[in-house]
Amino acid sequence: MANEVVLLNFQPSPYATRVRIALAEKGVEYERKEEDVFNIKSELLLKMNPIHQKVPVLIHNQKPICESLIIVEYIDEVWNHHSPLLPSDLYQKAHARFWANFIDQKIFPIGSKLWTSPSDEAKKAAKELVENFKTLEQELGEKPYFGGDNFSFIDLALIAFSSFFHSFETLGNFSMEAECPKIVEWANRCLERESVSQSLFDKFQTHEAVLGIKKMLGLDS
Amino acid sequence: MANEVVLLNFQPSPYATRVRIALAEKGVEYERKEEDVFNIKSELLLKMNPIHQKVPVLIHNQKPICESLIIVEYIDEVWNHHSPLLPSDLYQKAHARFWANFIDQKIFPIGSKLWTSPSDEAKKAAKELVENFKTLEQELGEKPYFGGDNFSFIDLALIAFSSFFHSFETLGNFSMEAECPKIVEWANRCLERESVSQSLFDKFQTHEAVLGIKKMLGLDS
Repeated sequence: MANEVVLLNFQPSPYATRVRIALAEKGVEYERKEEDVFNIKSELLLKMNPIHQKVPVLIHNQKPICESLIIVEYIDEVWNHHSPLLPSDLYQKAHARFWANFIDQKIFPIGSKLWTSPSDEAKKAAKELVENFKTLEQELGEKPYFGGDNFSFIDLALIAFSSFFHSFETLGNFSMEAECPKIVEWANRCLERESVSQSLFDKFQTHEAVLGIKKMLGLDS
Repeated sequence: MANEVVLLNFQPSPYATRVRIALAEKGVEYERKEEDVFNIKSELLLKMNPIHQKVPVLIHNQKPICESLIIVEYIDEVWNHHSPLLPSDLYQKAHARFWANFIDQKIFPIGSKLWTSPSDEAKKAAKELVENFKTLEQELGEKPYFGGDNFSFIDLALIAFSSFFHSFETLGNFSMEAECPKIVEWANRCLERESVSQSLFDKFQTHEAVLGIKKMLGLDS
């Protein structure tokens, strides 16, 4: 079977970043089609993800897969010859899914309130975000990666948001180095991987975009 | 290896219902420990799910697994000798996960606004909920079950909420029979299974509980 792989992508999206990292980890060749998510969505995107109309979408042999963690699991299962992302042990696999799910619920939805909510709500969100990073730091413990000695599913799920760490700190008025130094060390460790460093969107460009959204919402006072 | 299986359960919880259905489908013997989620949480629950402190928790040979769909996937993988819930085909598996995820995002979080939100927001939620059921009806199409001829993952993910359909209709002032007749037929079909009928919480007791919450929130005017 031919392996035709297309990614409907938006470079700044942390969710698309997850898929780019997974494809890079697996060494999968693919075609990237850039979507302009803030303006007109392509007919292809509307056809391939009619329900959510969002990137990322992975199109594998003409068939679409949507939702970043579902795509990453799919990639891991299809290209299973090397660089496993999920553990083969079933308990460890459930554990990895649990923490990826925690990250999905507790990092970006809370962190993005720093630039999409009025200041009292944003302040509350900053506090909650720090707590959530501390919870993650506790789960990481002394391990180099969340899953142990190797970069895997939980790392990938979280590192995609590291482009926003600078914005979290700046707008939330806290220091990750002070609050969760092991997470900072862990992020630097992940960044040494080409699959990660080449997939992440620049943190300063991210911050510019974030400030643009804040301004657009009339919250830049 | 001994298979010691304990479920930290709360009978009215649709999330716990999913796990009860999955265990029944697989014919797994287990001990049920009832939690009083509205009052004092047991030490066991706080120890086994310190992060979310919520039911359901499956404790398999002393090790906890949390989050209903993650538990169901775990059950499907561990007791894989019969009644597969997720398809073996990788694309179909991603497809099933996509729809279970849609259900998680779009049914209960929207539907529960009917008894937890002020009336203007509740009215908006009712409209959205009907749209979401119609989307599910379109995905179901003419198939007896979401995955095709057999009861599987998506069916299980959705049917657990059917105890609330009566409350959705009553408080949302719509008729599921009129809006999404195929979903009603599908639910009746699922209810013919002992695994489902014996796991679901009674719809009238559910409705009483729902009205109790509404009253507690001062929204019963």
